Amino acid sequence: MRCEVVAVGTELLLGQIVDTNSSWIGEQLALAGIDSHFQTKVGDNADRMEFCIRQALERSDAVICCGGLGPTQDDITRDVIAKIMGVEMVRDDKIAAHIRDIFEGRGRVMPENNLRQADVPAGASTIAQMPGTAPGLVCPIGDKVIYAVPGVPHEMREMMHGTVLDDLRRRGGDASVIRSRVLRTWGYGESAIAETLAERVDALDESGHATIAFQASGIEGIKVRITTKAADDAAAEAIIAAEEALIRELLGDYIFGIDDESMETVVLAMLRERGLSFAAAENLTGGILSSRMTALDPNLEVFRGATIAPHGTNQNAKAMSGEDRAVSAATNARDMIGTDIGIAALAPLEGEEHPPGTVFVAVSLPDRAEARTVALPGVLSRMRSYAVITALDLLRKRLSEDG
Amino acid sequence: MRCEVVAVGTELLLGQIVDTNSSWIGEQLALAGIDSHFQTKVGDNADRMEFCIRQALERSDAVICCGGLGPTQDDITRDVIAKIMGVEMVRDDKIAAHIRDIFEGRGRVMPENNLRQADVPAGASTIAQMPGTAPGLVCPIGDKVIYAVPGVPHEMREMMHGTVLDDLRRRGGDASVIRSRVLRTWGYGESAIAETLAERVDALDESGHATIAFQASGIEGIKVRITTKAADDAAAEAIIAAEEALIRELLGDYIFGIDDESMETVVLAMLRERGLSFAAAENLTGGILSSRMTALDPNLEVFRGATIAPHGTNQNAKAMSGEDRAVSAATNARDMIGTDIGIAALAPLEGEEHPPGTVFVAVSLPDRAEARTVALPGVLSRMRSYAVITALDLLRKRLSEDG
Repeated sequence: MRCEVVAVGTELLLGQIVDTNSSWIGEQLALAGIDSHFQTKVGDNADRMEFCIRQALERSDAVICCGGLGPTQDDITRDVIAKIMGVEMVRDDKIAAHIRDIFEGRGRVMPENNLRQADVPAGASTIAQMPGTAPGLVCPIGDKVIYAVPGVPHEMREMMHGTVLDDLRRRGGDASVIRSRVLRTWGYGESAIAETLAERVDALDESGHATIAFQASGIEGIKVRITTKAADDAAAEAIIAAEEALIRELLGDYIFGIDDESMETVVLAMLRERGLSFAAAENLTGGILSSRMTALDPNLEVFRGATIAPHGTNQNAKAMSGEDRAVSAATNARDMIGTDIGIAALAPLEGEEHPPGTVFVAVSLPDRAEARTVALPGVLSRMRSYAVITALDLLRKRLSEDG
Repeated sequence: MRCEVVAVGTELLLGQIVDTNSSWIGEQLALAGIDSHFQTKVGDNADRMEFCIRQALERSDAVICCGGLGPTQDDITRDVIAKIMGVEMVRDDKIAAHIRDIFEGRGRVMPENNLRQADVPAGASTIAQMPGTAPGLVCPIGDKVIYAVPGVPHEMREMMHGTVLDDLRRRGGDASVIRSRVLRTWGYGESAIAETLAERVDALDESGHATIAFQASGIEGIKVRITTKAADDAAAEAIIAAEEALIRELLGDYIFGIDDESMETVVLAMLRERGLSFAAAENLTGGILSSRMTALDPNLEVFRGATIAPHGTNQNAKAMSGEDRAVSAATNARDMIGTDIGIAALAPLEGEEHPPGTVFVAVSLPDRAEARTVALPGVLSRMRSYAVITALDLLRKRLSEDG
C-alpha cells in the first residue's frame, strides 16, 4: 500500500506557513505501515493541482490532499478532484444544514459562499468527523482513492485518526486496526530503558502481538510506544492495556504519563486533586517553569508564583552544599509566596568543581525536604529546560509516594 | 524565471524532521521575484530522487536540491546529479584539504568516508560559502541549472544568500542584486503604518528605486521591508539607507530595530550601555518575560529578576486605577529585587469593566514612573505575549528619550 501527500496552498510555497501537516501525516502513515515515497506542495492553481494529484495517483494507491477545502474562491480542491473523477459536483444537503447550524450556534449569519463547502464530487462520501465547516472527502477512483482533508491541523488530525488511516488499511486488504499508546518516561536513559525492556521486546517479537519502540524526545522525555494490530478497537485496547501493565511493572515510577500528557499537566492534576499549591525558585530556570505553569494555570490557583534572582544572593551559600542550597531556595520560595510546597533548581556556584550540566533540584514539603544532584546537558538553554522537568518530576514522585 | 525545490531525506517523509528549509527557500525566491510552483519531498532513494529532479528540471529553469550532501552512504544527492548531468565524479582536492583541515582544527581524525563530500560532478562548481563540511554545488545542465545545498539550515541559508539567489537572478538575465532591510515596528497598526507611508510608497512606485512592503508578524510586530534592485551591494546599500532615513522620519519611535533585532535584544543593549538593571512584575505575563530575558542574559546582569504572584495580592488594589496598580507593581518589583528600573504588566481586576484585552503596563524609574492602558488581543496566550513586548517597548521609549 502506497500513499502520497499533496499539500495545497500558495502560502505554503511562499513560506508564509510551514507545511507541518505533511510531516505529521507522513509519521502516521509510517506508524500504520503504509509507504509514502513522495510529498508535494502545490499552489492554489487548478492545472498544477490536477497535475500533482494525477501523478500521485498514478504511482501510488492513494493520495491525501491537504488544504483548499475552505469557502473562498481560492479553495478549489473539491473542483479539481471532481474533474479528475470525471464527475459533477452535488450539493450535500445534510452538510449544508450542518454548516448553517454551526454559524447559527456562533450567533453569526452564514455568508452564502460557505455553502460551497457542502458541494461534493458525485460518488465521493464525506468523512464523519467534521470539527470545522469543511467536510473531508473520500473519493474513490477505480480501485484507488483520493482523500481530501482540511489544512487546519486539528481538523485534519481528527479526520486522519477517525477515518483515513483505517480506510487506507482496509483498502490495503487489511481489515484490522492499528492502535498505539505512548508511555511517557523521565529520568531513565534510552539504552537503560531498552535494556530493561529487552526481554519483553523479544517476547513480543516472537508472539507478534504488539511492538514496542523507543523515541528520545528531548524535554518530552523518552517515549515508549506500544503498537498493536487487532481485529477491532476493543481487541486492540485489551492487548495494549495488558502490555502497558507489564511495562509499568518494569519501569515503575519512571513513567509519568501517557500519550499527550506532559509533566506539567500531570503535576498540576496531582496537586489540584490533593488541594495543594506550590511555588518555585527559578534561579537557574529563569522563568521557563513559570511561563509553562501559568499557561496551564493562568489564575495561579495551584502554581502560585516564583522567585527569579541571580545566583549566590544567599550570603551563607558558599558554606552550603549544592543540595542544601537547593532545599533552602525551595523552602524560601514556599515561605515567601505562602504555598504548601516549594521546588527549586540551582546550578553550582562559580568556582565550585562540578562536571558541566550538574544541577541541584529540591522539593520542600511542609514536613520534609529532599534534594537530588542530576547530570543534565551542558548547553545552558537545554540545561534550563531539562532542569524544569527534572524539578517537577521530583515533586511528582514525592506526591505519588504520599498517595 | 522558475525554480523548484526538491527536499531530500527519508526522515522528512517519515515526519521525524519538519521540512522548514523548503518554506524558507520559497520565501527567499518570492522576495527575489522568482516563481516557485512546486516543492517536492523525496526519500534517500536514487531512482525516486532522479525522477523528481528530472521532472523539476523539465518544467522549470532551475532546481534547488536541499539535503543528502553528508558523508554517509545514504547521502547520494551528488551521485544522482552526476547521473542526470551524464558525467563522472571528480575529487576536488581543495575541498578535500579543507575538510581535513576542519577535522584537524577540531582535534579529530577524519573518517575516510568524509572525503566523499569532496567528490563533485564534472562540470559542476562548488559554492564559495562552506560553513560545514558539505560543499554546495552549482551544476549547469544546458541552459538550466541544479543547485545542491546541505540540509543543515544555517549552512543552506548562508549558501542561498551568498551565491544561489544572485546566481539565479543572473541566469534570469538580471545582473543586478536584490537586497532588503526590515524595519521592526511596535505599537502602530498595519493600516496606520500603510497610511503614514502611503505617499512614500507611491513615490517609490513611480521612481522604481525600491519597494516597501508591510508584514504583520504577531509578537514580532509589524515589519516594514525595504527592497531594492541595484547594480551591486554598494549601490543597493545607498538606496536602502536613504529610504530607511525617510521612513524613520515618518515612523519615528515606532521603529525599535532592524532585521534580526528583537525587542528583547534592543532593550538589553540599551540598558547594558547605560549600566542600568531592571526587574519585572509578571503578574499577568507569568514568567514569559523572564524566560525570554534570562535566555539572553543568563547571569542576570541586566535583567535581575521578577515577581510572579496572583492578581489582587495588594490589599489596596481595589481602590486604585489599573495604571496606578501597574506603577505600584513595577515599583514594588524594582524595590524588592533592588534594581534601577521596574516594569509591570497587569490585567484588570475581576469585576472591573474593561474591554477584553485591556492591559496596564508601567515603567518605574528612580525619579519617575509612567503607565499606559493598551488594548491587546483578548485570548490569554496572545495577550500575555503581547503584554511582554508592550511593557518592554514602554521601557525602550523612556530610555531613548533620556538619551
